Amino acid sequence: MMQNKEKCQDGMKNQQEFDLAAMQMALVEARAAANEGETPIGAVLACGEQVIATAHNQKELLNDVSAHAEIKVLRDAGKQRGDWRLSDCTLYVTLEPCPMCTGAILAARVGRVVYGAKNPVAGAMGSVIDLPRYPLGSKPVVISGVMEDACRELLQDFFRNCR
Amino acid sequence: MMQNKEKCQDGMKNQQEFDLAAMQMALVEARAAANEGETPIGAVLACGEQVIATAHNQKELLNDVSAHAEIKVLRDAGKQRGDWRLSDCTLYVTLEPCPMCTGAILAARVGRVVYGAKNPVAGAMGSVIDLPRYPLGSKPVVISGVMEDACRELLQDFFRNCR
Repeated sequence: MMQNKEKCQDGMKNQQEFDLAAMQMALVEARAAANEGETPIGAVLACGEQVIATAHNQKELLNDVSAHAEIKVLRDAGKQRGDWRLSDCTLYVTLEPCPMCTGAILAARVGRVVYGAKNPVAGAMGSVIDLPRYPLGSKPVVISGVMEDACRELLQDFFRNCR
Repeated sequence: MMQNKEKCQDGMKNQQEFDLAAMQMALVEARAAANEGETPIGAVLACGEQVIATAHNQKELLNDVSAHAEIKVLRDAGKQRGDWRLSDCTLYVTLEPCPMCTGAILAARVGRVVYGAKNPVAGAMGSVIDLPRYPLGSKPVVISGVMEDACRELLQDFFRNCR
């Protein structure tokens, strides 16, 4: 029993370490967005500990309302795998997803979502609305607040410099 | 006064006629989707009486969870105009939009949405959830039930043939 418990704790520790590393990677993407003059939001899609796709927000550059980081990693992963179903994947994103992205995440049946900062303006995983609690198909595990300060500060700095 | 009233009624009649014509066009797109083995949903984006973009669902073909007809017309129009803001536009779609598409429609600030059949499984403009009533930015005018029977029957026939 003790061995099983230790193994389980090791697994959780590995998961937490991977979550932090993946969020670091999402932050690198978010900074790339800021460098392009875009709202700094980055995302990573991983299957287990394998990163499948990374992307950042490019809505202004592409004149594409759907070019959020989350939609971009879902599209990229679906294309790579030849399947839009991503139930074995975790999506990491620096900011709580909006309704469009949450809808896409639920539609792609993503199994797990890890996000950094809360989005009080348009957050659809608890802040303005909690879409995953509606009967819309999949129910991902949602973990919030991973590297929250770094994710929020990046956004705050960006908007401070915009003024 | 009488003249103004008549002019207004004429304007409304023209609008209704254009709405029907645009929905007919969306139905042509929906049939194209069915011919490709995709769930038959079509969309048209118009600015006034000018059609800017038409598209149909290609989620399976492209392995892209975001390749719904609505997202495709929003992307196409944004690219053509060099602006993701579409507040002067009407989006026509044969089926009530899902949360992802409704989120995109709100984010693009689409001024008016006309849809055909209700979507009891994933409709986000009143059926499962009513996203436009949340404080998420824009509040489009939403008109439902335009050519409802034709839109619904096309879907029912498709699913009957799938079995």
